[in-house]
Amino acid sequence: MKTVNVGILGLGTVGGGTALVLQRNAQEIFRRVGREVLVTMASVRNLESDRLCDCSNLSLTQDPFRIVDHADIDVVVELIGGESLAKDLVLRAISNGKHVVTANKALIALHGNEIFAAAEANGVSVSFESAVAGGISIIKSMREGLAGNQIEMVAGIINGTGNFILTEMRDKGRTFEDVLAEAQALGYAEADPTFDVEGIDAAHKLTILASIAYGTPLQFEKVYTEGISALSLTDVAYAEELGYRIKHLGIAKATDTGLELRVHPTLIPAARLIANVNGVMNAVLVKGNAVGNTLHYGAGAGAEPTASAVVADILDLVRGIDGACASRVPHLGFQASEIIEREVKAHAKFETACYLRFEVKDVAGVMSKLSAEFAKQNISLEGITQKEPKAGDDLVSVIFITQVTEEGRVDEVVASIEAMSEVFKPAVKIRVEHFN
Amino acid sequence: MKTVNVGILGLGTVGGGTALVLQRNAQEIFRRVGREVLVTMASVRNLESDRLCDCSNLSLTQDPFRIVDHADIDVVVELIGGESLAKDLVLRAISNGKHVVTANKALIALHGNEIFAAAEANGVSVSFESAVAGGISIIKSMREGLAGNQIEMVAGIINGTGNFILTEMRDKGRTFEDVLAEAQALGYAEADPTFDVEGIDAAHKLTILASIAYGTPLQFEKVYTEGISALSLTDVAYAEELGYRIKHLGIAKATDTGLELRVHPTLIPAARLIANVNGVMNAVLVKGNAVGNTLHYGAGAGAEPTASAVVADILDLVRGIDGACASRVPHLGFQASEIIEREVKAHAKFETACYLRFEVKDVAGVMSKLSAEFAKQNISLEGITQKEPKAGDDLVSVIFITQVTEEGRVDEVVASIEAMSEVFKPAVKIRVEHFN
Repeated sequence: MKTVNVGILGLGTVGGGTALVLQRNAQEIFRRVGREVLVTMASVRNLESDRLCDCSNLSLTQDPFRIVDHADIDVVVELIGGESLAKDLVLRAISNGKHVVTANKALIALHGNEIFAAAEANGVSVSFESAVAGGISIIKSMREGLAGNQIEMVAGIINGTGNFILTEMRDKGRTFEDVLAEAQALGYAEADPTFDVEGIDAAHKLTILASIAYGTPLQFEKVYTEGISALSLTDVAYAEELGYRIKHLGIAKATDTGLELRVHPTLIPAARLIANVNGVMNAVLVKGNAVGNTLHYGAGAGAEPTASAVVADILDLVRGIDGACASRVPHLGFQASEIIEREVKAHAKFETACYLRFEVKDVAGVMSKLSAEFAKQNISLEGITQKEPKAGDDLVSVIFITQVTEEGRVDEVVASIEAMSEVFKPAVKIRVEHFN
Repeated sequence: MKTVNVGILGLGTVGGGTALVLQRNAQEIFRRVGREVLVTMASVRNLESDRLCDCSNLSLTQDPFRIVDHADIDVVVELIGGESLAKDLVLRAISNGKHVVTANKALIALHGNEIFAAAEANGVSVSFESAVAGGISIIKSMREGLAGNQIEMVAGIINGTGNFILTEMRDKGRTFEDVLAEAQALGYAEADPTFDVEGIDAAHKLTILASIAYGTPLQFEKVYTEGISALSLTDVAYAEELGYRIKHLGIAKATDTGLELRVHPTLIPAARLIANVNGVMNAVLVKGNAVGNTLHYGAGAGAEPTASAVVADILDLVRGIDGACASRVPHLGFQASEIIEREVKAHAKFETACYLRFEVKDVAGVMSKLSAEFAKQNISLEGITQKEPKAGDDLVSVIFITQVTEEGRVDEVVASIEAMSEVFKPAVKIRVEHFN
């Protein structure tokens, strides 16, 4: 069968890794798909840089448009990142009738609706497995492996930098700032860490997962997002004492009154498998109405794990490229005509349990005064813990864990408690999910 | 588009669950695949039994051959289990040009080579996602999601009954026999538990996983198999003290000198995610040469989790049924012409660490006498532990954990030690895998 020619836009970490994996595993890949898959062109910023892959049979160019316009290229792999140029290149490849593979989560989360419409109009496919959770084939698992299910919930550790920071804080008692500095030195975190630590990267990925779970349009702007930069060691330690771990999760949940799309630190019972996913690793919990809970675990970033997903997308295309089946699975797993808007809830309407910590003056009756506020709002409590004051301190921490309730009602209780003269600091609120 | 008519052979737990899931999720399924998928016929043993699904629009028959021969049936779903009749039905469906979905691991492990050849000759597809690890879409993940990788190792908890027994033994200090009786009462284990507790069921599944990992023919007879029936509470507890958990694993590993295909109890460091998979749940660890370690976790059995995988297979077919792409992915993930025999190692050649426990008379010098035997064979030790003798007992347990070595050499050491007059019981040997 005819060789498939791949053109890669961007030959950095992921691009170089992709070419390397295609080269090193060429024999295995031929055995799988019955034809050669060759990277024949790649665009680079600097022609002289060192590369991860062998470039001897590869035509390098500094003009990525030469690749998307080249008649011999069958599949365009977009790995330059960013939004503007990447979008122009992807749309031009599509209008040239070329299939596209991309690892660009921001591009898909923000411009996916437009890109998929263009792809469908041109009879080509845009694949983006590597955009979420690196080497874990979570998109394939959800669009195909779990296609018989109604998805009830997706909850994922989908930012490796954030998970590395939380793991170090818990295991070694290090502060957020201290670990972040190390993560930057190790290359896990960008020089500007905002995307990672403020949850934007996770929100991009959650946007994609949610649309695949529910067959809804991509709607990044509706994701409620909190990062981990405000997390204190105190709460990491108290959570532990109470039998929980804190993880930064992206959660998409279907409820009778709408979808919850949220990214925030979350207490999870320590016995849950997902609570034990440590370091830079990613994991996605998917709950289907037939299968129950499934967990999908692996490396979320890095040259070769990401390349693993990019290559899987290429091979998926190659397996169907001669028939009409390259677009066999629709982009979001649902027929384009069946992509349906659903109500997305404001965060005050989220149904969740909460961990609340108040710093209060250690005076008689204060516990019952605080507890009474929960009773007023009819919020049941899972537990109340009072921590001993630190030496020389007359403030004590009081921790409430609520049962599942509407978050807005918890916020009202917090506001009334914060208004009390015995209460000193703004309260800490961290959501709790049990994942039974 | 035309409705797809499904005929189910066997309407018991999985068959009824499959019809139920197709009925309950019909709207979601239509949104996904753009056509109706209807169960129109089913074969049953007894026409009067209670069913999990609505049978009002379903033609029931006691003759399964009526279904595989029926012109209106597009997909045959074989869920009667067993080997002989199931094989006849599947081969007849194939020769009638029908696609087949089956959950029958014994059928695929023992007769898959013949069945796949027949399917390829007839241009149809035989899907068997539900045959391994129930609702976890591990076959899709390996054949497609990880297709860019050379698979270095697969290691799975792939028998839920066995994992339930091991979990109870560890958590509650109950004996094997005690838990087995409960598992039988709960319906987790068959009246004849041999297939589960002696590892035969796991070996069927490992046979399938190994062929998909390496593109080799199915060769059940070459799997080295040990069950869990000989495991003692003593070793479960000692393993725990040493920082390990014992899990019953199916392992397929590629080495320079051949494949290791083995099913046996295994010590795993307690911190590994797979060591924390408890109860009836299944999990499969796959290590690829690009992606590194991935873990795939979910329910391994039960009506709806298994149905989830059966329905996924049906929908995969439906998505390609009008094009030439129903057989887009070859049965074992590799082109039929590329299925290659590879040397399978005898268990004496396995590369593994071992936990060894000897009961010895508590006399001076015995530890060094035993240790000397390892030195003679040049086997490095990870650790040696001597347990205090129990009250009134003059025997002590001595535990050695070796570093990774050829298992046959460990067996020689064990034989020399067992021959010593100070050594009383046959040694316990449990393999150790670190899964770094």
